[in-house]
Amino acid sequence: MAGKMPTYKSALLICDGLGDRPVAALGGKTPLEAANTPTMDRLAAEGATGLMYPISPGIVAGSDTSHLALLGFDPFECYSGRGPFECAGIDMDVRQGDVCFRVNFSTVYDDAEHTPSIDPETGALKATVQDRRAGRIETGTDQLAAALNGIEIDGVQVQFKESVAHRAGLILRGEGLGQNVSDVDPHAVDTEIWIAKGADPASQKTATVLNKFVAKSYEILKDLEVNKQRVAEGKLPANVALPRGVGTAPALGDFNERNHVKAACIVETGLIRGIGVYLNMDIVDVEGATGGLDSDLQAMARAIVAALADHTFVLCNMKGPDIAGHDGDAQAKIKIIEAIDAAVKTIIEEGPQDLILAITGDHSTPVDKGDHGGDAVPFLLHGPGVTPDRVTAFGEGPCGAGSLGTFVGQNVTPMLTNLMNVQPKFGA
Amino acid sequence: MAGKMPTYKSALLICDGLGDRPVAALGGKTPLEAANTPTMDRLAAEGATGLMYPISPGIVAGSDTSHLALLGFDPFECYSGRGPFECAGIDMDVRQGDVCFRVNFSTVYDDAEHTPSIDPETGALKATVQDRRAGRIETGTDQLAAALNGIEIDGVQVQFKESVAHRAGLILRGEGLGQNVSDVDPHAVDTEIWIAKGADPASQKTATVLNKFVAKSYEILKDLEVNKQRVAEGKLPANVALPRGVGTAPALGDFNERNHVKAACIVETGLIRGIGVYLNMDIVDVEGATGGLDSDLQAMARAIVAALADHTFVLCNMKGPDIAGHDGDAQAKIKIIEAIDAAVKTIIEEGPQDLILAITGDHSTPVDKGDHGGDAVPFLLHGPGVTPDRVTAFGEGPCGAGSLGTFVGQNVTPMLTNLMNVQPKFGA
Repeated sequence: MAGKMPTYKSALLICDGLGDRPVAALGGKTPLEAANTPTMDRLAAEGATGLMYPISPGIVAGSDTSHLALLGFDPFECYSGRGPFECAGIDMDVRQGDVCFRVNFSTVYDDAEHTPSIDPETGALKATVQDRRAGRIETGTDQLAAALNGIEIDGVQVQFKESVAHRAGLILRGEGLGQNVSDVDPHAVDTEIWIAKGADPASQKTATVLNKFVAKSYEILKDLEVNKQRVAEGKLPANVALPRGVGTAPALGDFNERNHVKAACIVETGLIRGIGVYLNMDIVDVEGATGGLDSDLQAMARAIVAALADHTFVLCNMKGPDIAGHDGDAQAKIKIIEAIDAAVKTIIEEGPQDLILAITGDHSTPVDKGDHGGDAVPFLLHGPGVTPDRVTAFGEGPCGAGSLGTFVGQNVTPMLTNLMNVQPKFGA
Repeated sequence: MAGKMPTYKSALLICDGLGDRPVAALGGKTPLEAANTPTMDRLAAEGATGLMYPISPGIVAGSDTSHLALLGFDPFECYSGRGPFECAGIDMDVRQGDVCFRVNFSTVYDDAEHTPSIDPETGALKATVQDRRAGRIETGTDQLAAALNGIEIDGVQVQFKESVAHRAGLILRGEGLGQNVSDVDPHAVDTEIWIAKGADPASQKTATVLNKFVAKSYEILKDLEVNKQRVAEGKLPANVALPRGVGTAPALGDFNERNHVKAACIVETGLIRGIGVYLNMDIVDVEGATGGLDSDLQAMARAIVAALADHTFVLCNMKGPDIAGHDGDAQAKIKIIEAIDAAVKTIIEEGPQDLILAITGDHSTPVDKGDHGGDAVPFLLHGPGVTPDRVTAFGEGPCGAGSLGTFVGQNVTPMLTNLMNVQPKFGA
């Protein structure tokens, strides 16, 4: 007689930008292959390995599109831009259909030579960018944001919230808003702010509201006390808000309900945090998780162990390898991978005994490229129910001979909920 | 500090009909496995390998549908027939929406016993085919084509151009033309020309125009000087044009813009040349590239090397293996594969040092079948950024253990533009 079906907990550890290509200075090895990773090698030997294309073979993924894929969604269907996840990442109330933007508090020239004006036809601000980060403003942005939050333009509600330093989030909520709008932020100084245009009638409505919002941000921000004080101190005023990264909030539902789990999200960047928030995962912010190469990965490991006490699924993103990849620094990438290996040791030693652990990357960030690649990323699966293959090391080359073969990011969540024994049967 | 991101050039060498199945006379090896291919084996050892299904597992691909897939398109969406690519292959001006055909100059009986007539109801020609290739006419077809080119039928523009020998291309351009029309060419002699029928109203319009065109071709061609002279010489007159292979020209855009490359196309057959023309690749016609087993593959290799000087992507199709496969001649297939190996040696030795080279087939043409198969085709990827796998020979069997696993044709172009470092990121 069969006993009660056992269920297991799982952790999906995504090492951001982990994948790489052969590096001449490493004798043709990748940083992961060159790194000393005794724990992950042991898990590879005990478990199964393979190569995963986050989106599909060759497609160069962003961190947002790849995380959506790894969590079971088709980014070609649900992703239109980073805005919704950036806004969710700073705990704004993002709802399906909202048109969302990242924003920079910036400075436009405002002197005898360059006087900002409003274009009577479009309502857009005509002004020239002096500094895209408003003198790298650090404080007072909460007061600036509060002055913009809640205004209404042509019947569209504006939500606005400050993020870190000069950054902020903007949500436009209203009927019939399209997302195909061109940029406002010219991404350069001494250049006029661009006037947003819409590619279709709904997006033209968004463009009109967006242009008026930028104009309004100038009118409201320039006279605020925060800015008067900055000018008095010889600093640049944050006298305009420049949106970019538009995207419409998609219908993704609740990750927990969809996958029959109770999920926690332990990450280091606002963008991935936003995906966790948006999917209704419990967010665990870890002190010392800086998003940089100095991040306290042991603290993150302990947070994963703690979260597994009252969750069945933990998504964790460790950002370091991507930083080192963007820096083109193979030695730094090796070092952070070795720190990740030590963190994995903590998870294995202190976490639940029957943990299903998947370790992979969200994309490659080859040090020789210095940016994301569309290469396959090594994937390691360990825990109860996993048939071991012959691979005994965690790396791009070894995993190419693994029993999981090549697969895509969208396969990962079902692979985990399968081993957890929580996924309902499809069919009879 | 990260340096400037390097970019690389790539060549996609498609050996037409390369794939095969175990051949008893070769001791159970495939022709590729039996062939002596030291260069491709070395590249397999240094690079990564896998098995590619041109369309999807088991689907028997044509050369046109597979090349479209390998170049990044879904042939189920964009392909309705070979007509547009045949017409583009002879440098006709094919535009999106055109309904295009291949055409044979043919002979219908025209004597006391068989007098061609026009059906008063449909306007179609009632006549009996005497020879589908008009006595294998070789000269004068330019004058015949000129007499048909530019006529108008029911407001539809007719473009007509001669190709090689008895072949030609026909384009119908006009509003509301459908492509679901039945054949006119009965593909047999001593048989009446069929009357085209349309499966829907738009296609019925095309059928009506097509039937009238065939009738008109008889009326115009029979009295032309070229035909009078042929009859005087005891040859069959090319007194009718019989269209087949209907297809509507799809919206594919510009391959260069779509993939951020500057592409050259070096091929041996009009059909694949037409795909290159249609995608706005630069066409390089190589003297000695005959499309047969006698083709000068070294000349093609040198043309690839030359094209790589001022292009970033070269598509090359070497036709020979498909010919040998259709002939059911395993030894001929081995011989042409060995000639391809020697051509690859030239590309590697004389081409750019950091070339990304992919070698594969567009489909199998198993010698025991004598026609295209839907088998997986061996795939070899070599160059900077490719992590080597354990495979050390290029063949159907060895590539089945490669790290690229099994994938489909539509993955190939993104895999190449990824390694070239020219593909933009999808997401943030």
